[in-house]
Amino acid sequence: MDIRKAGEFGFIEYIKEHFDVPEGALGIGDDCAILPSAEGELIYSTDMLLEGVHFLRTAASPEDIGWKSLAVNLSDIAAMGGVPVATFLSIALPEEAQGEWAERFISGYAELSRMFNVPLLGGDTTSSLRDVAINVGVLGCAPYGKSARRSGAVAGHSIYVTGNLGSSAGGLQAILKGWEITPEVSSLISSHMKPMPRLSEGQALLETGLIGAMMDVSDGIASDLRHILKASGIGASVDLDSLPMADELRSVCLKYGQDAHKLAASGGEDYELLFTAPREIENLLDFPVYRIGEIVPGDSLIWMWDGNAMDLDIKGFNHF
Amino acid sequence: MDIRKAGEFGFIEYIKEHFDVPEGALGIGDDCAILPSAEGELIYSTDMLLEGVHFLRTAASPEDIGWKSLAVNLSDIAAMGGVPVATFLSIALPEEAQGEWAERFISGYAELSRMFNVPLLGGDTTSSLRDVAINVGVLGCAPYGKSARRSGAVAGHSIYVTGNLGSSAGGLQAILKGWEITPEVSSLISSHMKPMPRLSEGQALLETGLIGAMMDVSDGIASDLRHILKASGIGASVDLDSLPMADELRSVCLKYGQDAHKLAASGGEDYELLFTAPREIENLLDFPVYRIGEIVPGDSLIWMWDGNAMDLDIKGFNHF
Repeated sequence: MDIRKAGEFGFIEYIKEHFDVPEGALGIGDDCAILPSAEGELIYSTDMLLEGVHFLRTAASPEDIGWKSLAVNLSDIAAMGGVPVATFLSIALPEEAQGEWAERFISGYAELSRMFNVPLLGGDTTSSLRDVAINVGVLGCAPYGKSARRSGAVAGHSIYVTGNLGSSAGGLQAILKGWEITPEVSSLISSHMKPMPRLSEGQALLETGLIGAMMDVSDGIASDLRHILKASGIGASVDLDSLPMADELRSVCLKYGQDAHKLAASGGEDYELLFTAPREIENLLDFPVYRIGEIVPGDSLIWMWDGNAMDLDIKGFNHF
Repeated sequence: MDIRKAGEFGFIEYIKEHFDVPEGALGIGDDCAILPSAEGELIYSTDMLLEGVHFLRTAASPEDIGWKSLAVNLSDIAAMGGVPVATFLSIALPEEAQGEWAERFISGYAELSRMFNVPLLGGDTTSSLRDVAINVGVLGCAPYGKSARRSGAVAGHSIYVTGNLGSSAGGLQAILKGWEITPEVSSLISSHMKPMPRLSEGQALLETGLIGAMMDVSDGIASDLRHILKASGIGASVDLDSLPMADELRSVCLKYGQDAHKLAASGGEDYELLFTAPREIENLLDFPVYRIGEIVPGDSLIWMWDGNAMDLDIKGFNHF
């Protein structure tokens, strides 16, 4: 196995082969691991964020990095329809980040913790030679046997997202390319820096009892939806022209000659929920959801535009 | 707050002040966090290991680093008297470690996992710019209201450890100073590289119902015992000449002019269990424990030698 050839998902497959998963548990391969317990299902997610790979200390405020470190994990709990119970923070700090930077990081992490009333109950602190390294783990719970997995999509289900796609990718472009900070650009950057985990939406979706498959949009729907299709053994047709996009994304893309639809389809880190369900779910929700396509027989992901299949190979974001 | 002045424990205090702990739970400050659940107590521990800070890729085999990353966390579960249920591995790899190094790391981690039959159920994988970064989380369980904490030491209890102290510190000295690899030195290096978590011992100790306080020896008893004293609001007297030491440590220290007793008192990473209990516990165990002192009124840690109090200020290992 060579990750440089096998990729991140090849490495994950290699790891899976080396460990047995106990009866009733769900291991590597979904948004959270699942462990049955007396009072329901325990669910757990963890994410590592490294300076220079996932964020730049020169481009993001410490508060935003603290917020996002937690947000991406709470989003995984949301993707199962779960409730977060406790979080755990490991952080390695080089000397120059051991004063104000550390305080402000904790402040951003604590702000989001309070918003969802989820306590930080443990972790690890250490120095590092050069770069900040962060790992957050979140423990949550869900009703027994009911947490939403990636494997439940069936032909005939519609495919939905809970909000705009591409804004985070637009914000990242703005930072990398140094676009002028207008109110529109600022709004995109904020989507990138301070994503909001869709916890109440995830729980409400689970309560309908109608969810087929669900996950959060972390690598972009082009990549994320393929995980659902693979886990469910099914295909999908997605209408590119129906992807919900913020007006700010459309206008900024127009100004800088970017393809907003491509950003919406391939851009990661929106942390909206992506799910499949029969259309009747639309009548049961008190928040908007956006129908972007449907689950179809087969194993392909077909991109449609104005009712016609397109010859497109849109890729998502890979962390290796 | 400035960690460079406040130290690791000052930073941890700062974090604690920013988060509420729910009724019935135990947050930051013990070997594991504790969450009450319907079937007992959930316990959780996490540790971050960084190349250049906690290990050198040039000095340790990938298998040993994999083993130790898991061992230090299982040791925290052992310190509560708990049973490990699942582990979670986050790993960041620079390009040159994405082939054989990664495979061999997983092999060492899997070997210890199999030994204690604890599954790896999730994690995160990513690339890194330069250094390997590892974070392991372990979820475990213990009987409701019974997991061993640091806060239960009372005057009159004896203080015990489950095995030799100082061997790991001796092994680290051997590596750092390039001592000749004799069988004795090799044995010390092995203690440093492949510590054995005392899981069955921790569970057996808990089952006696006699444990006052318990923790694992990670920073050296000089530091670790002070945590027990602070959490319990009590003092201790420790007989330096009663610290159990491997013959290999004594002979290697003699050869290189090192103070074996100081290594045993201040050297970290032995991952033996350190606990307090009435002496009757000695009759209830089918494995050896070593009495090293007793809990006494007050709040001081007094070092004794041959029955006389010594004027010593022995410090443990600090990760900042």
